Amino acid sequence: MSDILIKLAAVLEARKAAAPDSSYVAGLYAKGLDAILKKIGEEATETVVAAKNGDKGQIVYETADLWFHCLVMLAHQGLSPNDVLAELARREGLSGLEEKASRGKS
Amino acid sequence: MSDILIKLAAVLEARKAAAPDSSYVAGLYAKGLDAILKKIGEEATETVVAAKNGDKGQIVYETADLWFHCLVMLAHQGLSPNDVLAELARREGLSGLEEKASRGKS
Amino acid sequence: MSDILIKLAAVLEARKAAAPDSSYVAGLYAKGLDAILKKIGEEATETVVAAKNGDKGQIVYETADLWFHCLVMLAHQGLSPNDVLAELARREGLSGLEEKASRGKS
Amino acid sequence: MSDILIKLAAVLEARKAAAPDSSYVAGLYAKGLDAILKKIGEEATETVVAAKNGDKGQIVYETADLWFHCLVMLAHQGLSPNDVLAELARREGLSGLEEKASRGKS
Repeated sequence: MSDILIKLAAVLEARKAAAPDSSYVAGLYAKGLDAILKKIGEEATETVVAAKNGDKGQIVYETADLWFHCLVMLAHQGLSPNDVLAELARREGLSGLEEKASRGKS
Repeated sequence: MSDILIKLAAVLEARKAAAPDSSYVAGLYAKGLDAILKKIGEEATETVVAAKNGDKGQIVYETADLWFHCLVMLAHQGLSPNDVLAELARREGLSGLEEKASRGKS
Repeated sequence: MSDILIKLAAVLEARKAAAPDSSYVAGLYAKGLDAILKKIGEEATETVVAAKNGDKGQIVYETADLWFHCLVMLAHQGLSPNDVLAELARREGLSGLEEKASRGKS
Repeated sequence: MSDILIKLAAVLEARKAAAPDSSYVAGLYAKGLDAILKKIGEEATETVVAAKNGDKGQIVYETADLWFHCLVMLAHQGLSPNDVLAELARREGLSGLEEKASRGKS
């Protein structure tokens, strides 16, 4: 399941060579970075609204929309979801060390 | 690498039982949903600003912040990153079918 | 010039009685609060992007869009821009007092 | 009441010459545009959350925060709230004309 981000990134990379009217993502690339970023702001707000509604299906749907448009932005900027996952892993490692340190203190 | 989201979700789940002052995330849970959602809005904007700056390190850092706070929100709402990844996989499958259909047309 | 917010609020109030397909705002009311809030998130992001672009015309246009959708939200929630302006005046008064106090100190 | 935006803009303009540690706004100017924009994204999300909570006092407070940080951004970019109000007046005028036009049609 968890390698879907990598699979999606490969699909998004391939779409860069596609005609603007061939798919939603190809159209978004053609509109450029500002249009992609507008979608990130829009989907973040929809995620917030979904969470306030407490509707689990809606939360999952909108969070997927938000992450998807983050993947489009990463691809547009020459980055991979692996870069973000590595940053999260680095922090989790640090956090693990912090926890050990704080356990040591108590 | 890609199972870091699942590992992080397990850590976030465990923090639910921790004292509010024991970690950043435990404090965020204690403040409640609105505080978590405020962070999602804040980090989404920082991701947008980082992308406009075109600074790859900053983009990775802020997108990691955004995804991290989405994971906190999902945990708070009783959801798993797997729910979001499954939704993305479902769409990618649909998209694959769409592509096949459109290739059939050409 | 500065009473345009009040004039606009009166127009927005009148639109509440209009048919959903009679204007953009009437349609937005009919879609409900979540649709109005989505626009606030979207226009806030566009304001951020415009400011990063440093394009004065775009900044003015997007900030106007953001304030306009705030006015629609206020009207939908039974509030007036005067409520927000009074809150800003209250703070400015407090700030004025603070300044006087700090000038007194030096 | 409605000239509070202009009064506030004059205060914000004066703060540009102040030492970074002399006030909240002077500190925000010193941090620069990205810090100001982060606040716009944060306050927009808090406005959305307040509206979902349906708490009128909270809505007024957060919308005032959002407009205030828009004023800071406008001042930072060499713009006045009058620029935004003029754009809103222009649209309201257009909208009035549109209405007359559509009434003419029916």
